[in-house]
Amino acid sequence: MEAIKWNGDSVTILDQRLLPLKEEYHTYSDFSDVANAIISMETRGAPAIGITAGMGIALAAKKMKAANFQVFKQEMQKVFDRFAATRPTAVNLFWTINRMKKIFEESTSIEQAVKRFEDEAVLIHKEDIAANRQMGKNGSRFIEDGDIVMTHCNAGALATGGYGTALGVIRAAIEEGKRIEVFACETRPYLQGARLTAWELMKDSIPVTLITDNMSGYFMKNGTIKKIIVGADRIARNGDTANKIGTYTHSVLAREHKIPFYVAAPVSTLDPDTETGDGIIIEQRSIDEVAFVRDVQIAPEGIKIQNPSFDVTPASNISAIITEKGVIENPAGRGIMELFS
Amino acid sequence: MEAIKWNGDSVTILDQRLLPLKEEYHTYSDFSDVANAIISMETRGAPAIGITAGMGIALAAKKMKAANFQVFKQEMQKVFDRFAATRPTAVNLFWTINRMKKIFEESTSIEQAVKRFEDEAVLIHKEDIAANRQMGKNGSRFIEDGDIVMTHCNAGALATGGYGTALGVIRAAIEEGKRIEVFACETRPYLQGARLTAWELMKDSIPVTLITDNMSGYFMKNGTIKKIIVGADRIARNGDTANKIGTYTHSVLAREHKIPFYVAAPVSTLDPDTETGDGIIIEQRSIDEVAFVRDVQIAPEGIKIQNPSFDVTPASNISAIITEKGVIENPAGRGIMELFS
Repeated sequence: MEAIKWNGDSVTILDQRLLPLKEEYHTYSDFSDVANAIISMETRGAPAIGITAGMGIALAAKKMKAANFQVFKQEMQKVFDRFAATRPTAVNLFWTINRMKKIFEESTSIEQAVKRFEDEAVLIHKEDIAANRQMGKNGSRFIEDGDIVMTHCNAGALATGGYGTALGVIRAAIEEGKRIEVFACETRPYLQGARLTAWELMKDSIPVTLITDNMSGYFMKNGTIKKIIVGADRIARNGDTANKIGTYTHSVLAREHKIPFYVAAPVSTLDPDTETGDGIIIEQRSIDEVAFVRDVQIAPEGIKIQNPSFDVTPASNISAIITEKGVIENPAGRGIMELFS
Repeated sequence: MEAIKWNGDSVTILDQRLLPLKEEYHTYSDFSDVANAIISMETRGAPAIGITAGMGIALAAKKMKAANFQVFKQEMQKVFDRFAATRPTAVNLFWTINRMKKIFEESTSIEQAVKRFEDEAVLIHKEDIAANRQMGKNGSRFIEDGDIVMTHCNAGALATGGYGTALGVIRAAIEEGKRIEVFACETRPYLQGARLTAWELMKDSIPVTLITDNMSGYFMKNGTIKKIIVGADRIARNGDTANKIGTYTHSVLAREHKIPFYVAAPVSTLDPDTETGDGIIIEQRSIDEVAFVRDVQIAPEGIKIQNPSFDVTPASNISAIITEKGVIENPAGRGIMELFS
């Protein structure tokens, strides 16, 4: 299973909206379709969005018919703007776009830029997988043989270039011979846990049990869950972590039950420019995500709905932040800056 | 809107499975259909189940062709057994059946028993509504003008004879002129909050906002939610309270954020024979409730699923237990017995 693939002159994307019922891949030769695939959530997860955007930019450059380098640069600026507008809260998206913009500054011809865009897109993908594997190695010591580990949303192979962040740590522990079971929270409203985490773990024959989000307290109280590990969408300078809605609730329950709570995320998710979690803007998504499950309406017509997509877990609820560059244990009061020095 | 109605020779039931999209009533002249309506969850909620069973028993008695009182009693025993098996965890069901059984002991003829069964069924319904209204009066002082009150599952008119327990307290506060808004948690997996609480509050023009269960921490942390009130399925001698899965999680978050957490339930829900919450057996329901939303499959084929239907909130997380006989503030260490003396 490769959720995103660069084919040299096209991009193949696993349509995650159809999971877990259908495993369907779409191949796009036009960058515009790649941008739309991000908007429509055919692909999702901050690292995967960054990788897909990189491939989309490389594809746009390769297919572009420009009279000269000046025109090429103008047209590519539009491509950057197009991708920047797809999912503006995904920090990795801008990280990719900035890397691609730097190539302009260093290139002197269309041919050179096209070649370097492609190399960079492939590199971003490779680096992401390598970072995930290193993250797994760095974090696996926290997971013990026999553990039942709870996770929320999908911080797995489907959300990244492959292997995953939170699920990467679980995969690394299993590769070391530990017997691990996963409890996956379904993750309302978009059901990334039920649809994606459950699917990718079953595909890898990793034992997984699905629960609804509101069961996490029950299974912590009765001693079933031994560890919690989640991904992150943005980590502030003080260690406060934005992740999928519901993560904060699990973190409060974890502290109540003295269960270790880990965050696994690449360094590109760390945001030293945001002082604390209060500075993280929370994306509000369509209320239809709550009112409908696929095409089934579950709420009364005209009901008022709130749909914040993320919440912020304070550093004080986090036992460790696991990155590919190292681990910050007990980040409260320490923050993330040591990983940048 | 009357969710359960006794017509003298039939029972009319609002089919709650079709809510919120369709408001459809079924009239049953055969007690067997009434029993099936409980099993299939056409009607649900512990008090509503008790009331419906009472009407079903009265209906069975009225329609029965028995040669003599002895045969009548034998046949009615089968009717009792039939209702006892419908939803065996609903404590009110047995409470109704025991009241009906007592009528046997006191009756000397079929005619007398039939008449008294009918009177008792109507009385159980009336008493429930009166108890809810008294509960509302007893609890409304905890709800202040301008409050946003969160609730979980459906402890409303639809779950009772009318008016509701937790929602009854909210209705009473509103009747006193307080402006109240409700946040309704959708209550996965069966979505009683999205389907029933949202529907009945909109129907009464009570301002209501729907959220997914995993958003409760977010809205407590940001100060939106001022109070929490829920119903109960069983309350142990020490005040530990079994209620719909997810209630415990909300109670932990409430304590973390110093938000008062109230339980509203009739005295018939108090169970002095169960010492603590550990003694309450948790019903495990079909995994299809988690894997499907109506006919839409949301989880991979063959996935392992857990579906505990209830959890237990310790008395120490409860600010007050509100009943029709009185209120127990800070039940931890005090228990419920003072309401029985």
